[in-house]
Amino acid sequence: MSTALRVAILGASGYTGAELVRLLVRHPDVRLVALTAERQAGKPLAEVFPHLGGYDLPDLVKIDQVDWDGVDFVFCALPHGTTQDVIASLPPRLKVVDLSADFRLHDVETYATWYGHAHKAPELQAEAVYGLVEDNRAAVKAARLVANPGCYPTASQLPLLPLLRQGLILADDIIIDAKSGVSGAGRDAKQANLYGEVAEGVHAYGVAGHRHAPEIEQGVSEAAGKPVVLNFTPHLMPMSRGIHASIYVKLAPGKTADDLRAALVDAYKGETFVRVLPAGVAPQTRHVKGSNHCLIGVFPDRVPGRAILLSVIDNLVKGASGQAIQNMNLMMGYPEDRGLEQAPLFP
Amino acid sequence: MSTALRVAILGASGYTGAELVRLLVRHPDVRLVALTAERQAGKPLAEVFPHLGGYDLPDLVKIDQVDWDGVDFVFCALPHGTTQDVIASLPPRLKVVDLSADFRLHDVETYATWYGHAHKAPELQAEAVYGLVEDNRAAVKAARLVANPGCYPTASQLPLLPLLRQGLILADDIIIDAKSGVSGAGRDAKQANLYGEVAEGVHAYGVAGHRHAPEIEQGVSEAAGKPVVLNFTPHLMPMSRGIHASIYVKLAPGKTADDLRAALVDAYKGETFVRVLPAGVAPQTRHVKGSNHCLIGVFPDRVPGRAILLSVIDNLVKGASGQAIQNMNLMMGYPEDRGLEQAPLFP
Amino acid sequence: MSTALRVAILGASGYTGAELVRLLVRHPDVRLVALTAERQAGKPLAEVFPHLGGYDLPDLVKIDQVDWDGVDFVFCALPHGTTQDVIASLPPRLKVVDLSADFRLHDVETYATWYGHAHKAPELQAEAVYGLVEDNRAAVKAARLVANPGCYPTASQLPLLPLLRQGLILADDIIIDAKSGVSGAGRDAKQANLYGEVAEGVHAYGVAGHRHAPEIEQGVSEAAGKPVVLNFTPHLMPMSRGIHASIYVKLAPGKTADDLRAALVDAYKGETFVRVLPAGVAPQTRHVKGSNHCLIGVFPDRVPGRAILLSVIDNLVKGASGQAIQNMNLMMGYPEDRGLEQAPLFP
Amino acid sequence: MSTALRVAILGASGYTGAELVRLLVRHPDVRLVALTAERQAGKPLAEVFPHLGGYDLPDLVKIDQVDWDGVDFVFCALPHGTTQDVIASLPPRLKVVDLSADFRLHDVETYATWYGHAHKAPELQAEAVYGLVEDNRAAVKAARLVANPGCYPTASQLPLLPLLRQGLILADDIIIDAKSGVSGAGRDAKQANLYGEVAEGVHAYGVAGHRHAPEIEQGVSEAAGKPVVLNFTPHLMPMSRGIHASIYVKLAPGKTADDLRAALVDAYKGETFVRVLPAGVAPQTRHVKGSNHCLIGVFPDRVPGRAILLSVIDNLVKGASGQAIQNMNLMMGYPEDRGLEQAPLFP
Repeated sequence: MSTALRVAILGASGYTGAELVRLLVRHPDVRLVALTAERQAGKPLAEVFPHLGGYDLPDLVKIDQVDWDGVDFVFCALPHGTTQDVIASLPPRLKVVDLSADFRLHDVETYATWYGHAHKAPELQAEAVYGLVEDNRAAVKAARLVANPGCYPTASQLPLLPLLRQGLILADDIIIDAKSGVSGAGRDAKQANLYGEVAEGVHAYGVAGHRHAPEIEQGVSEAAGKPVVLNFTPHLMPMSRGIHASIYVKLAPGKTADDLRAALVDAYKGETFVRVLPAGVAPQTRHVKGSNHCLIGVFPDRVPGRAILLSVIDNLVKGASGQAIQNMNLMMGYPEDRGLEQAPLFP
Repeated sequence: MSTALRVAILGASGYTGAELVRLLVRHPDVRLVALTAERQAGKPLAEVFPHLGGYDLPDLVKIDQVDWDGVDFVFCALPHGTTQDVIASLPPRLKVVDLSADFRLHDVETYATWYGHAHKAPELQAEAVYGLVEDNRAAVKAARLVANPGCYPTASQLPLLPLLRQGLILADDIIIDAKSGVSGAGRDAKQANLYGEVAEGVHAYGVAGHRHAPEIEQGVSEAAGKPVVLNFTPHLMPMSRGIHASIYVKLAPGKTADDLRAALVDAYKGETFVRVLPAGVAPQTRHVKGSNHCLIGVFPDRVPGRAILLSVIDNLVKGASGQAIQNMNLMMGYPEDRGLEQAPLFP
Repeated sequence: MSTALRVAILGASGYTGAELVRLLVRHPDVRLVALTAERQAGKPLAEVFPHLGGYDLPDLVKIDQVDWDGVDFVFCALPHGTTQDVIASLPPRLKVVDLSADFRLHDVETYATWYGHAHKAPELQAEAVYGLVEDNRAAVKAARLVANPGCYPTASQLPLLPLLRQGLILADDIIIDAKSGVSGAGRDAKQANLYGEVAEGVHAYGVAGHRHAPEIEQGVSEAAGKPVVLNFTPHLMPMSRGIHASIYVKLAPGKTADDLRAALVDAYKGETFVRVLPAGVAPQTRHVKGSNHCLIGVFPDRVPGRAILLSVIDNLVKGASGQAIQNMNLMMGYPEDRGLEQAPLFP
Repeated sequence: MSTALRVAILGASGYTGAELVRLLVRHPDVRLVALTAERQAGKPLAEVFPHLGGYDLPDLVKIDQVDWDGVDFVFCALPHGTTQDVIASLPPRLKVVDLSADFRLHDVETYATWYGHAHKAPELQAEAVYGLVEDNRAAVKAARLVANPGCYPTASQLPLLPLLRQGLILADDIIIDAKSGVSGAGRDAKQANLYGEVAEGVHAYGVAGHRHAPEIEQGVSEAAGKPVVLNFTPHLMPMSRGIHASIYVKLAPGKTADDLRAALVDAYKGETFVRVLPAGVAPQTRHVKGSNHCLIGVFPDRVPGRAILLSVIDNLVKGASGQAIQNMNLMMGYPEDRGLEQAPLFP
């Protein structure tokens, strides 16, 4: 197709890179023209990801081998920290969705505190638009550089932001007990992510120190209209995909869990990907696997004045590559769900 | 779309029924007009399968509530044994793909031996076309009633049939050690399929007595041109989806594993869904998950004069619902891969 | 051994029954003389639980077939609700540990509210001693009937009770986000517990309505010295064994997470089975699998004035059968860890 | 205990090393005096294996820090290839069980062919006794250096050797389709063993080239009285522990599967750890998990003149550390099952 958008994926040998390919080979407006992977350059992608064999795809190359004249759009799926230099070096006409954490935090000092060094591209940091589409659609449409939200922040903010904006819940003592599949940790060989170390058990990690905490706090503070510090406690689950956020909140005076549900139903009533479940129904991560969906459940707490928000996504889709494509669709004027129509895979 | 094919799914509350829905909601030529489930009639499908919420689908009904005047095509995903009466009662103008085992065996005595009773619709049994598409495409195109192959027989016959037809392997002492995910056992509540009974362990079952053995032997015998009895030993794997067939064969005199691979590459060179891997590469079930793909690997054995064939499919897709849609596409004149284009989901 | 304690297990065909057998076949002071299972009566246990083949065990019988004259001690592992009548009918000289929930709640009205009917043996309910050994050792030693604590209550109360007793944390707004393996749901055939419905996903269940909530509140209220209502939200994990309790608490004024850890180290310093981990170390359920251990971690929260308690047990051992044996050892004057010495199985 | 056997474990930071510790902390005749791990030296073992916290164990040291004067017995759980030099350097008075493959093959040329280099300690290779206890008990009792069998060879040879010795099956065309949990691949960080690469899928590996093939052939050839080449095809399972060998054999003329079962029952009738199941019962790996048991099932094949042998072990116990302790018990004159009495952990 002569008018196809020519897309490059930087960092195609990781799980989010492969997930971009999985979804984009079905996108009718996109042609994949460059796939990079520094250490695997020269190989066909199918050697690194055999499930993607059988598609007509370019071989893996190094970033400096990409002919940028033939590229219209870039997904950057590189590790955190390495991304700033790479994106700063791209031709400025290129639209970019960055899946790393490098451009998510607006505040340079918060970035430096959590990542241990000054930001290397502060002007791009200022330009970058936070791509939580349902909350920030207008800005995304006009953006050149989108910072794709993290998986935990996506699952956490989708239920929280509308409720905070409307003053239905309090911003203090928010507790987010989050559960994630292990694909969020990437494909690098680490002992902690071996099958024998992950299967048939659960544990918390990064307790009170996970880098997604400031990202969530940034959105929550903006929605609440004041600085918020919250509890964010991630747990590793024996599963490949899925994020489950269990959020314990205090109701604003006089409000009920039903009020919260009604407000969320209203907030997401026109959305393709976010669905609020009926009262009494708890969402399950397995029911969004492979899809860009987010399911939200709302429950009253036994403790008076409190409520429970439950939210699930597929960390590699709505929590990464699917949301990145949703951002691209908006930036390019395509229908927002293009290439993201597939139903979840269950069981 | 006024010209859409109006499709009914009988038995939509099982895994293969749900998988038909998952795939058909994306099929541009199909409109789902009836979904049946005797015990769940009256419920929205999303209550039974929450991952299919968010689609505009008819509620579940009983079979006798279906208005057949509004139906053009039927998928029958009912349990083995109950299907014969149901299909015999349908208006004869309806085209049908039956996913049960009821119409797969051509020989009425073999059927009676393995299923314990005489076939109740022998004239339909005679009419039914065996829907292993890659082996039987012409007959499928002309069929009104297609018997969709079993999961094990699909994975086993795709590598075996071309080699037997060409006389490259011997038909005696074929050993099929097969491994299956548990979704093949369906969604009925059985103690043997509980998580605690399936996870973190493997075992053989139905040893020397599994009903897929005569189905495989039927195809193998036809391809070999003589009656064949073979070893078929299924094993239950701690996973939801996937079939892995490890097939141990004797080479015809003078033939090598390379000859086998070359013959299979040639046999499947125009196929969308079957791919023969390069020498030395073993297929993995996780690399076809959610797709209609079949991957085949061929290896020389250490034992002189022998070779090893390895074949993988997703039992719910190429082993059931995907292949059923592939059959429908052929019967209706649609492109064979329509609605089946999605890439596998990994990890 | 002529002086061995003659033990009967009522309900030996469930997971907790089998776990009692697994542990008691190694207990040098015990001889298993009766194993009951109403629907499986007449079978050898090895037919129901093949992993227990190879031991010299009595066949399964019905409860009314047991010769009580030959029994000294009874473990009752029957379903909730059926237990009251059975235990009331036993010869009163028999010592009993009941693993069901029937005798855990002291308050007859709370029992009636949560279980939907009046208690059938209120005098036994009054007699029963709550068998959370580390908290209630003296009473257990003197007891004839011990109500073995639930799995969630064990994991939740072990970190909470000492801190509440000492006033180091506040009793309001306690939030317990609990994660359990599926063996806690038993071995009955239920669709919700099939492998395909449990693997590779997580979800909350019984939100704000789980029957372990009043059991935890009973202990917490007693320790806090006032009635407490708390949040208890269980989640089903894709694993067979393990409970992980993530407990979010408010510090008493001036107290720190280090104070909590120090208090717990002190509270459990002489205990065989409870271990408080060093600062910064999060417990993992896989590190207690198969053992009677409880591991506890304590972390400061990012939210000022709050702390996080993490606690793990094996739900079938310290959360059921292991703790039951620990109770028996105390009731009979054996060393508390007898038969419970094995190290956890990892990986 | 002043008379305890003082035991050193070389390579205590791997799964087999940890499994030795798990079992030996319960062995009444053993005291662990040295645990080595070159890269982790200086750490407490509990930092590397938290499930082993709470035991009074020596910290990890380097091999050259061990005081051999205080050691009576050595388990060597080092990687293949590094072991020869280490064992050659030990004081010759020390009894040793080596869990690596270095001393299993008697033939120096076979070793060189499969391992790519000449053996570095050929005199020890000649001295080493193959520790498949049930087949070689007398030699083990007299041995100073025992080569502990591999996991696959243990599961494969236990059913095969008695049948070959008695001429009940033919030695040609033996096909071993083996399935293993991933702990057999060790604890080193490898991408191929990540949770995301192992869960929810199966595949063959090392097809026709796995180093356990010559080890099995060595035993089978000896039992058959002639050189045997056989098919050995290992598959990786999505589980941590367990080996399942499915062995397809030809019956000697006139023999039946029942003859095979009877012969195996007779061969193992006095054994503690090997159990032949009743006709029609297939063994499951989950029923031996954590134990030193081997379960064997025997089935007639549908193909005339053939039979199927099914055998399961826990690869880390009977396939490694448990069998190593069984060897030690024999070498030291302890009861053969000492420290190995625990029942399997299920589920």
